Amino acid sequence: MQNFELTILGCSSATPTSKRNPTAQLLNIAERFFLIDCGEATQIQLRRYKLKFQRINHIFISHLHGDHYLGLLGLLSSMHLLGRTAELHLYCPAELQEIIEVQYKHSETRLNYQLIYHHHTYENDVVLFEDEKVLVTSIVLNHRIPCCGFKFTEKPLLANISKDTITYYNIPVEQILPIKKGADLTLPDGSIIPNEKLVVSKQEPRSYAYCSDTCYDETIIPCIKDVTLLYHEATFLHEKLERAKETHHTTALQAGQIAQKASVKKLMIGHYSARYKDLQPLLDEARSVFDNTVLAIEGEQTKL
Amino acid sequence: MQNFELTILGCSSATPTSKRNPTAQLLNIAERFFLIDCGEATQIQLRRYKLKFQRINHIFISHLHGDHYLGLLGLLSSMHLLGRTAELHLYCPAELQEIIEVQYKHSETRLNYQLIYHHHTYENDVVLFEDEKVLVTSIVLNHRIPCCGFKFTEKPLLANISKDTITYYNIPVEQILPIKKGADLTLPDGSIIPNEKLVVSKQEPRSYAYCSDTCYDETIIPCIKDVTLLYHEATFLHEKLERAKETHHTTALQAGQIAQKASVKKLMIGHYSARYKDLQPLLDEARSVFDNTVLAIEGEQTKL
Repeated sequence: MQNFELTILGCSSATPTSKRNPTAQLLNIAERFFLIDCGEATQIQLRRYKLKFQRINHIFISHLHGDHYLGLLGLLSSMHLLGRTAELHLYCPAELQEIIEVQYKHSETRLNYQLIYHHHTYENDVVLFEDEKVLVTSIVLNHRIPCCGFKFTEKPLLANISKDTITYYNIPVEQILPIKKGADLTLPDGSIIPNEKLVVSKQEPRSYAYCSDTCYDETIIPCIKDVTLLYHEATFLHEKLERAKETHHTTALQAGQIAQKASVKKLMIGHYSARYKDLQPLLDEARSVFDNTVLAIEGEQTKL
Repeated sequence: MQNFELTILGCSSATPTSKRNPTAQLLNIAERFFLIDCGEATQIQLRRYKLKFQRINHIFISHLHGDHYLGLLGLLSSMHLLGRTAELHLYCPAELQEIIEVQYKHSETRLNYQLIYHHHTYENDVVLFEDEKVLVTSIVLNHRIPCCGFKFTEKPLLANISKDTITYYNIPVEQILPIKKGADLTLPDGSIIPNEKLVVSKQEPRSYAYCSDTCYDETIIPCIKDVTLLYHEATFLHEKLERAKETHHTTALQAGQIAQKASVKKLMIGHYSARYKDLQPLLDEARSVFDNTVLAIEGEQTKL
């Protein structure tokens, strides 16, 4: 089975703590390495966890609050200084291009590799990236400034046909790939064997939805319905609901509610306010609504 | 004796390593806290070493290469989010103002405190800051882009007069402060006792010069002459002299030569290239010319 693995590099909200860095995640799907947000010190976290950052070819930035992008310039510069020549794709708010260019103008930097910008349009289900294995689409979030979430979906995998089935029906070689892709089999007598009788253990494509930062907003539910793993911010406990509303953030209880209403398989919460030294109350609160919840913890890897 | 203490927060050159952060230093002179350069993750380093960053009222940025300022936005934002209202002075290249303002425009941030810019003019010995205890002046460095070093000097301290001396000469109370400041004493019979016979252990004012980044350039010598501590970059070993010249950096040997020619009391080297895992060869090389040399090491405090 191909890799589908998420590594948390930072899980704090706006002010980092001595134990928690601002938001960044590395997602590996079939050896495509996607960096999702890039808070300050992301390059240092990548080094700490021995993750080779030159393998990252696609960086997704949700929005322009500093805790989600201030590590980007340093990472881009280190990639340059360490000899990168491969092009790098940046999926981001249009204004980030101005922020990067003004800094490289004043430092008189010319990158040795091409930076290709893909500006957010803030519509749902826009295809941001696609190849033969992975599809990445947009999720419109509801924050103080324009903010975009991301959904990463595995392309359907080929099913398996057992040797016994091939022998039993005497399936010609040229029919095997079409059947693996979903075709039925027509026998010489004209009768049809439906695909589901031929293939075994076809794995459901896995999917990961990233939703940070946002207030509680049910309009995202169609985009995240049934995903294998939902990452949803949970900046506050529900007792701070007013503060959450003011700052366009979500409480742990609300994150559980969204997960439950969207029938996701598993929920991961993160983007914790610096006020919470102990994260267990946040986890307990989300689990009171949606049991299969885990905490985002720096350095931890989750296999989907 | 009042404090005069330097804490190293980062000592790496452009690409940080898993053990070394980019440049930042905290200098405490008589409870004035000066931050000198602010590489990525400086706010995280300040937290790690339990240094209260809200006490910093003056930040000095030498130049606009990312390893010297990319931690600034995050630090300014955390100061804001944690309730700062006291004004903050920024001594920096004029272009840094544009870099900060474009980011706060796009994040729709309005700081709760005033940021007061003092733009570098790139002339030697310009007074950047002065109060009754400290004087900070500029040092023009020689780098690929405009770069300014800083010299921090203690104001002359008051001398002491022993009780015995006061009794012996029957010194009137109103004469004590003038004598501590350097005045002679005129006795009732008109004879004059020179100041040096009255005061004891007047401490020489201490000074710290910060020179990063720069190539070897003897024109800085008049600015750094006789300082108590010189921090001078030593990015490379002398075997990489050509690379040092290309990139406008200094070798450890050259840093030793500058220290020796400027008759400084002590030299600290830093801004090490990521290629040097072991720093001892850099130290040995500088010491081969100037014996009283130490390494900049993160977390270490040096009392002047």
